[in-house]
Amino acid sequence: MSSENTPDDEDTFKILIATDVHLGYLEKNAIRGNDTYQTFEEILQCAKDKKVDFILLGGDLFHDNKPSRRSLHICTTLLRKYCMGDSPVTFNILSDQTTNFNTTQFPWVNYQDENLNISIPVFSIHGNHDDPTGAEGLCALDLLSAAGLVNHFGHSNSVERIEISPILMQKGNTKLALFGLGSIPDERLYRMFVNKQVSMLRPKEDQDDWFNLFTIHQNRSKHGPTNYIPEQFLDDFLDLVVWGHEHECLITPTRNEQQLFYVTQPGSSVATSLSPGEATKKHIGLLRVKGRKMNLQKIPLKTVRQFITQDVVLADYEDLFTPDTHQVTKKVEDLCYAKVTEMIEEAERERLGCPLTPEKPLIRLRVDYSGGFEAFSTSRFSQKFVDRVANPKDIIHFMRRREQKVDFKGLKNQLLFNKLVKTVAVEGLRVEDLVKQYFEAAEQKVQLSLLTEQGMGKAIQEFVDKDEKDAIEELIRYQLEKTQRHLQARGVTTEQDIDMEVGGFYQAMNRAKAHRIERGENPEDRNISDELGDVALDSDEGSDPFPPPSRGRGRGGRARGGRGRGRGE
Amino acid sequence: MSSENTPDDEDTFKILIATDVHLGYLEKNAIRGNDTYQTFEEILQCAKDKKVDFILLGGDLFHDNKPSRRSLHICTTLLRKYCMGDSPVTFNILSDQTTNFNTTQFPWVNYQDENLNISIPVFSIHGNHDDPTGAEGLCALDLLSAAGLVNHFGHSNSVERIEISPILMQKGNTKLALFGLGSIPDERLYRMFVNKQVSMLRPKEDQDDWFNLFTIHQNRSKHGPTNYIPEQFLDDFLDLVVWGHEHECLITPTRNEQQLFYVTQPGSSVATSLSPGEATKKHIGLLRVKGRKMNLQKIPLKTVRQFITQDVVLADYEDLFTPDTHQVTKKVEDLCYAKVTEMIEEAERERLGCPLTPEKPLIRLRVDYSGGFEAFSTSRFSQKFVDRVANPKDIIHFMRRREQKVDFKGLKNQLLFNKLVKTVAVEGLRVEDLVKQYFEAAEQKVQLSLLTEQGMGKAIQEFVDKDEKDAIEELIRYQLEKTQRHLQARGVTTEQDIDMEVGGFYQAMNRAKAHRIERGENPEDRNISDELGDVALDSDEGSDPFPPPSRGRGRGGRARGGRGRGRGE
Repeated sequence: MSSENTPDDEDTFKILIATDVHLGYLEKNAIRGNDTYQTFEEILQCAKDKKVDFILLGGDLFHDNKPSRRSLHICTTLLRKYCMGDSPVTFNILSDQTTNFNTTQFPWVNYQDENLNISIPVFSIHGNHDDPTGAEGLCALDLLSAAGLVNHFGHSNSVERIEISPILMQKGNTKLALFGLGSIPDERLYRMFVNKQVSMLRPKEDQDDWFNLFTIHQNRSKHGPTNYIPEQFLDDFLDLVVWGHEHECLITPTRNEQQLFYVTQPGSSVATSLSPGEATKKHIGLLRVKGRKMNLQKIPLKTVRQFITQDVVLADYEDLFTPDTHQVTKKVEDLCYAKVTEMIEEAERERLGCPLTPEKPLIRLRVDYSGGFEAFSTSRFSQKFVDRVANPKDIIHFMRRREQKVDFKGLKNQLLFNKLVKTVAVEGLRVEDLVKQYFEAAEQKVQLSLLTEQGMGKAIQEFVDKDEKDAIEELIRYQLEKTQRHLQARGVTTEQDIDMEVGGFYQAMNRAKAHRIERGENPEDRNISDELGDVALDSDEGSDPFPPPSRGRGRGGRARGGRGRGRGE
Repeated sequence: MSSENTPDDEDTFKILIATDVHLGYLEKNAIRGNDTYQTFEEILQCAKDKKVDFILLGGDLFHDNKPSRRSLHICTTLLRKYCMGDSPVTFNILSDQTTNFNTTQFPWVNYQDENLNISIPVFSIHGNHDDPTGAEGLCALDLLSAAGLVNHFGHSNSVERIEISPILMQKGNTKLALFGLGSIPDERLYRMFVNKQVSMLRPKEDQDDWFNLFTIHQNRSKHGPTNYIPEQFLDDFLDLVVWGHEHECLITPTRNEQQLFYVTQPGSSVATSLSPGEATKKHIGLLRVKGRKMNLQKIPLKTVRQFITQDVVLADYEDLFTPDTHQVTKKVEDLCYAKVTEMIEEAERERLGCPLTPEKPLIRLRVDYSGGFEAFSTSRFSQKFVDRVANPKDIIHFMRRREQKVDFKGLKNQLLFNKLVKTVAVEGLRVEDLVKQYFEAAEQKVQLSLLTEQGMGKAIQEFVDKDEKDAIEELIRYQLEKTQRHLQARGVTTEQDIDMEVGGFYQAMNRAKAHRIERGENPEDRNISDELGDVALDSDEGSDPFPPPSRGRGRGGRARGGRGRGRGE
């Protein structure tokens, strides 16, 4: 179903979907400072041009939990400018609005407020960047809500139990149930799903008449065993999930063959990192829903700064140079210069005829210099591109394939380490449990102030790109190295002392294992599909929406090299 | 003219005036945290009940330059709740609104915005607490402006020249010119007035038909020679000045007999310090303007926490005790206990029948223990009142009459000091000039990092309560003491070195004197009335408003002891 044969009739919801606008990201940067504001304006202008019924945002409208005054001022101004006016809103809300909009003293949708003349209502969940804080549990969106400029929904006040009540909307004969869940730390939400503390409420009558749309802002990529939300956790009565948080634009809906719903991942409207996922061309979506059928039209964003990234592996250029070549570093630099120049030229060609696109592109060349090469001075290199690139200072990123750097010779605990790895790998303990318990034990026993949970959080982050098993091994190795350094720093040298300190880790592991058994989890057969064994995967013909075009990443963005695993921001 | 014989007819502007609401002051305090919000709500409720045409705020709506999310959220909510609705606004604006409202992309008064249904427009200047910052020159009020909840006016973008354009309003036959000037550092504004860089623009036609109302947020009390704005600086065509910033409620208009205008000082709606000025009962005003006549009705605020303060001079109780009396400190504590209990009981009696008044009063007993008495433990004392007083920890404030503590014996520069004092006193140099130049000289010559201008700012603050001449002497004494300590710390002992360092001060003084002469100011006859000698003080019968009731401070607040000089916050 293309947009041509979808008449925008009185039964068709037209919804503009976007997410992760990150207003205020790098706003103090002389070159990129206005990027987020310009793109938000483009999105609002698009909604106005397309005469949508409403805008649906998937979280992280703001980059900072406490947005700057400028950021709030611009956002308020743009919303007032584009979303107020005389165009009538032609859908109704049938659900209890005091349940839907529970974060202000005005628990009704803004376009029904008789003191506000709203032409395009905005519905938004909060993201992890603009999540609620403080005793009142308010987030930046709530300031916009209080002013009547945004309808903040999907905010759960309870940490015990989440009940997601949909906003029930009707336009002509089409009934749309809009579910939303604002960002919650992944591991907590994961656990709540597993413990059946999350439920989605459906209207009791005419259940099959509703198109069920769900907006969520969580890790979709697997960052550690419980540090994401598997699509399988979501109810199978859903028709479409709008997945925020993940920045790579994978907006064309993909079908989850187990749950029989579709997932669209619009991706951020600004690159907040120079990782390959951000190089995929940015889009927003125009979603049409008529009855139980849907169609999602991709709309490329024109104001987004171009971002081109490439990988180069120096060892692949044996015909040009090896580490032993005379002036090899100069040759490497020349190669990089040529590559970057080529990328800039590609950006310039593509920008032709796109007056809204900012002039200077973001360029990232990842240089794998494993095998004995040396890094060259990037500051000198940057100078050459200062007028042509938006990020001159960090064009080049040197990296090495991870090599075994740890020397365990002389380590008292080599044996213990092996045991740990084996235990973890075989018994399937959760790294977080292990780590947490370890530090609890450590804190009680020796007050290892160096080894804080926070520091560990960072360590975990550093390993999330890797497979789970790798992560566990690396994490433990990291931990043991740190412990060793700590022991040395404290002058702990006797075998007994070492055993005491390192032993804490081992004890913690056993304790974690015991806990899992207490909770009725069998550490021996632990995998996600088992945990979900009792979730019914009924096939429901009625929930099968009109099939969208087959999934494809288009040209796969501009990332030429190995694309890393996506990571939400 | 009482309110009874002022019919609220179609020619009468009804304006609610309030200032220094300081939203968010002490909002984390368990007892006092909601005080500012409750009183703001009372003010808005009053405006609604009285069916005013608009609310005029004199600055410092927010206590913090960057208000907390809670503060912004509550303020937004209250404004939306009380100032939106169907009551029609019946006055017109005749002036160029793009000039009046220059801080948003919506340069028109909010009640004329066709997308907002405003029932009570709020007009506000900014104060020193919520003043504009950053490259964009935005203040917290501008967030409310952007949302259409407040009309922020009186914001001058230029530091070279201030032109105050009035908002020209007409209701029936009454013409009201509303002038405003947001807070500017007093010394800068003082200088600009002196240099004739400030001008008020008047409508060219029918000048005598306008009632001219001016709102300002500056020091009214003289805090140092140029650290305030003399009423004489203001144009004499004005009819009424609403003076913000000063927290003491002196709302009954007082007539300036030179300029022939009236000044009303509403005072803050919350006590942000325990100084006697804050103990005066808090009011807001209902100003009626009909033609060129006005009437100001005082409205006591009911939600304001009571604040009772008293001074006690221990030396006055010779019949009870002297410093040599057995267990004198215990007797002093008993006296204070009795006094505080009495104050609490007074508060309780007054609170009878006032259900809106918060239960626990603010109590401050200032104890002058000069003459050899000792302070008792206030932490133990506080414990006794923890359930009855809102500020148990700082009920008692020990103070001493300032005594001569400086010992100049052995000071190489005694002679020089005397000379300095004499020079300053006789030649009328400005302390700021002197200090600034001194530090410029000092910095160039010896890099006295201890003696920073900032530190000096604090020193100046410490002396602002005193008369100017005292301030100069104290300042110089302070400075010389500091220099002496500095010399000792640096091991400077030779006469030559001392002369060099202290001499810098003297040189600076001469330089300052030269500067004043360059500027055409004669240091020999320096006083404010002379500086204003060329300002015409024409008598203008037409500008003489209907005389308000004769000025009186009512019962003079609750301050029993010597009331300190008022100080703006």
